[in-house]
Amino acid sequence: MGVVVNLEDGKRDAASIRRLIDLTAGGMKRVNAEILSRAGSDVEMIPEVATHLISSGGKRLRPMLTLASAEMFGYSGEHHVKLATAVEFMHTATLLHDDVVDESDLRRGKKTARTIWGNQASVLVGDFLLGQAFRMMVEVGSLDALDVLSTAATIIAEGEVMQLAAAKHLETTEDEHFAVIKAKTAALFSAAAEAGAVVAAASRTDRAALRSYGVNLGLAFQLVDDALDYGGSTKDLGKNVGDDFREGKVTLPVILAYRRGTAAEREFWKRAIEDSKSDGEALGKAIGLMKKHGAIADTIARARHFGEIARDALAPLPPTDHKAALVDVIDFCIARVA
Amino acid sequence: MGVVVNLEDGKRDAASIRRLIDLTAGGMKRVNAEILSRAGSDVEMIPEVATHLISSGGKRLRPMLTLASAEMFGYSGEHHVKLATAVEFMHTATLLHDDVVDESDLRRGKKTARTIWGNQASVLVGDFLLGQAFRMMVEVGSLDALDVLSTAATIIAEGEVMQLAAAKHLETTEDEHFAVIKAKTAALFSAAAEAGAVVAAASRTDRAALRSYGVNLGLAFQLVDDALDYGGSTKDLGKNVGDDFREGKVTLPVILAYRRGTAAEREFWKRAIEDSKSDGEALGKAIGLMKKHGAIADTIARARHFGEIARDALAPLPPTDHKAALVDVIDFCIARVA
Repeated sequence: MGVVVNLEDGKRDAASIRRLIDLTAGGMKRVNAEILSRAGSDVEMIPEVATHLISSGGKRLRPMLTLASAEMFGYSGEHHVKLATAVEFMHTATLLHDDVVDESDLRRGKKTARTIWGNQASVLVGDFLLGQAFRMMVEVGSLDALDVLSTAATIIAEGEVMQLAAAKHLETTEDEHFAVIKAKTAALFSAAAEAGAVVAAASRTDRAALRSYGVNLGLAFQLVDDALDYGGSTKDLGKNVGDDFREGKVTLPVILAYRRGTAAEREFWKRAIEDSKSDGEALGKAIGLMKKHGAIADTIARARHFGEIARDALAPLPPTDHKAALVDVIDFCIARVA
Repeated sequence: MGVVVNLEDGKRDAASIRRLIDLTAGGMKRVNAEILSRAGSDVEMIPEVATHLISSGGKRLRPMLTLASAEMFGYSGEHHVKLATAVEFMHTATLLHDDVVDESDLRRGKKTARTIWGNQASVLVGDFLLGQAFRMMVEVGSLDALDVLSTAATIIAEGEVMQLAAAKHLETTEDEHFAVIKAKTAALFSAAAEAGAVVAAASRTDRAALRSYGVNLGLAFQLVDDALDYGGSTKDLGKNVGDDFREGKVTLPVILAYRRGTAAEREFWKRAIEDSKSDGEALGKAIGLMKKHGAIADTIARARHFGEIARDALAPLPPTDHKAALVDVIDFCIARVA
């Protein structure tokens, strides 16, 4: 397994999302202007903290999904730009709060906002961005879009609490873990894609197709991310390999290695994850055990499974550039660990 | 100055908001049921954390304002119940995040959620409640109400960041301080009152009256609260007298005593507030200086000023029980430090 490209890193080979980037270039220019304008406030600290994360080189995949989804159904107004911006703000707010909850010091290779401005500013600026996201949705005035996105906001928070409650719980089943990542990650991908369809007044069937595409893409995305944490390099990831391990996060590679392990191996995992006794040597051993049990390969296999479902979700739609671009995203996502 | 009653304490003499409580009793029963239902989640930790704070004996003044305001204009449906619940959830989410930001251990005399479940759970359950609040607003389907409440959510967060940025800044002017409490406290009172008028399809003029009533009531409420922190007792407040002082909070009594103080007194305030060198002796001296300069009395005078504006905001409305109940709230608020 070699890391080919990395979505969250500005320097990666973007070949396979090139089509999405090109198709949404016009809209994304407006989204970026909107982001800067809506992160503004007379309260100086707010744009400082907000743009620190916003300008830190994320690929803005989620707002691109919203734009592509709307334009795929022929939408040509401005509402999808506002919804796409709202989606990105919801994502940014989640990251700000996540870094506080996880006590993370690095994100995308840069210091996290909380290490510069403190946990307090991170919590509050996150709240501000969430408020701004809702204001933009209200301006768009679509109750259906508001429903989709406000429901996602609740589900994401539920997912985060689920993850917190299951923290260091090695007995977590694969199903329970899927429920967590479906809520904390896939729900926003799903809402991002569906909101575009909603604003374009797509049919119920088409909305459902985009929703299904989004949730399965999100699951694949998260699983690949979790696999990368045991197989990428610091440069590729914008974080250190083994960050999840050091933080005692129970991701799918860990769950599979633990379930398939011997009694002695499970003791190792307990010490490493539950007691946070993790060092370089322990990380090496963990990766060794994962390879022994095919845990990383099978995490990627699960990601492929969800990727296939995402692909089939779009299958009934007519063949357009936008559809092809959305399918490319699935391939791109999986190719990071191809 | 003696503390007569305390809004946030279940055991206070509630005589002067009795009329509001009686008038909204039917609606509040439904609000309370809605609160329990909407704080529910399959994720066990969510209702635990949420109801800990929700059931800790707050008076639920804000949702009562929404109900009374709607019913004053003849509304008799269910939408105001949902909006009132959303308002209470916004308030609860703010408290959860506030306690994390302020590192508070006590609220209303009980341990804060963060001391029991940790900062992480407090941040995330706050996010969940905010999400649920928006879902309820979306269910009501009034874009005007959504506008009022989502704008308030943004302003509240801005106010909190403003407060954080101005923390321990003794040179804060009274105007700057009013801007902070207007955003962090009064904006929700204002939105709570206006949302009721909106859902009852009140006229623009009537909406403006309720908005103005709410914001000025909120200012008075906060100023009285800040005065009480230097003049109540632990039992009355549900927190210790001097909590604000020990946390180095620059509230109006401090601002006035500092501005009116001698050079030597300002040195005292700097040590006490900026360097957090505050002990029992220092608190005694602080209260002494406030009395010397009339800082507490004038904080209450400012509160009365805003209370009068709130009263005049309602003046043009026809004399009804509901109007009388809302006016009572102003008096009640001020009477806490009468």
